[in-house]
Amino acid sequence: MADKDTKVADKTTIILHGGDYDKVYSALIIGNGSLGMGMDAVIFFTFWGLQRLVKGGLEKGALSKMNMLGLGKTMIKYKMKKQNVAKLERMMRDFKELGGKILACEMTMSIMGITKKDLRQELIDGYVGVGAYVQEARKSSINLFI
Amino acid sequence: MADKDTKVADKTTIILHGGDYDKVYSALIIGNGSLGMGMDAVIFFTFWGLQRLVKGGLEKGALSKMNMLGLGKTMIKYKMKKQNVAKLERMMRDFKELGGKILACEMTMSIMGITKKDLRQELIDGYVGVGAYVQEARKSSINLFI
Amino acid sequence: MADKDTKVADKTTIILHGGDYDKVYSALIIGNGSLGMGMDAVIFFTFWGLQRLVKGGLEKGALSKMNMLGLGKTMIKYKMKKQNVAKLERMMRDFKELGGKILACEMTMSIMGITKKDLRQELIDGYVGVGAYVQEARKSSINLFI
Repeated sequence: MADKDTKVADKTTIILHGGDYDKVYSALIIGNGSLGMGMDAVIFFTFWGLQRLVKGGLEKGALSKMNMLGLGKTMIKYKMKKQNVAKLERMMRDFKELGGKILACEMTMSIMGITKKDLRQELIDGYVGVGAYVQEARKSSINLFI
Repeated sequence: MADKDTKVADKTTIILHGGDYDKVYSALIIGNGSLGMGMDAVIFFTFWGLQRLVKGGLEKGALSKMNMLGLGKTMIKYKMKKQNVAKLERMMRDFKELGGKILACEMTMSIMGITKKDLRQELIDGYVGVGAYVQEARKSSINLFI
Repeated sequence: MADKDTKVADKTTIILHGGDYDKVYSALIIGNGSLGMGMDAVIFFTFWGLQRLVKGGLEKGALSKMNMLGLGKTMIKYKMKKQNVAKLERMMRDFKELGGKILACEMTMSIMGITKKDLRQELIDGYVGVGAYVQEARKSSINLFI
């Protein structure tokens, strides 16, 4: 536990565990906001979040909670378009262009039977375990589990 | 990334994203607990959390998860009353009186079509974007996404 | 707000609020990963998380979200077994043996009518309120709400 290891860096590390539209949206907007302010940003995709990195998984997928509240996918998409809010795909591209790092959880891949070929490998900077996550997180000023 | 910017202050910054009773409750009790111990506290209300700041939204609203587990709203309310647990309204008032700061997410307002007039403006200290959140969070010792 | 109080220690403090299999799993794997890297780790069990500490509550319990996504309990269990992923019970035992600390939320016990006798007391290091949580969290380098 040397002091060097625990020095807090100006970095945001997010575990994106949920796959709902609003959760992916939140992770990316916080990631992009952090990058825009000169911080580093890492998003660690696990469980339902990782399913969004499967080819074609970003725009569709789990929208259960939105639907449960009577605010359907169509309605949200319509409103978001109307308000000119950037779509997830665009936000993801911005995240990468601004220098954000995307890590895929190997354990989730193993549990859910997802292979590298299933994933959008061009977006992913590493396929890692919990050790790599902890290494990033312990030095981050902002840690979130979304 | 000057050191000044990343100095950790004794502050709790919470994103309240969920609207379930138990999540609002958790955010407020952690906020109040932090304030009671001499820390600063900020709650950033987004998505379903923000809907709780709409006039009349605190006591009603999404209780889906509680219901799904067979622990209905009535049951919880009854038990909470019985145990004399402070209600959300009271907790919110305490939070403000102890010096807690409430921020409303402008992006959510835009997506969900919520205007300032719809919100309980007397509780809200600012209508802000992700940049303001990151500024608070990067200097906080406790960051949570609820 | 003395500097001593806010010094960041190499510790992971997790609030386990959710009871879904994937959330308990995430809390334990991050806890064990932190301990394995020489950090301290504390998991504070509240709400649906605390129900997992009720006798017999670890293996069964709320799996709603998994089921909603068409990935049933049986399927997950089968795959996890196949992949030789350690089960929750084993992960919990590892967590304790590696020196992890388990705290039970007194407020949840009061709200849900859970007594100490209902809980697996051999696992629990303390029955505490929000103050004890804040004391742990304000000094932790990784704080998560799961």
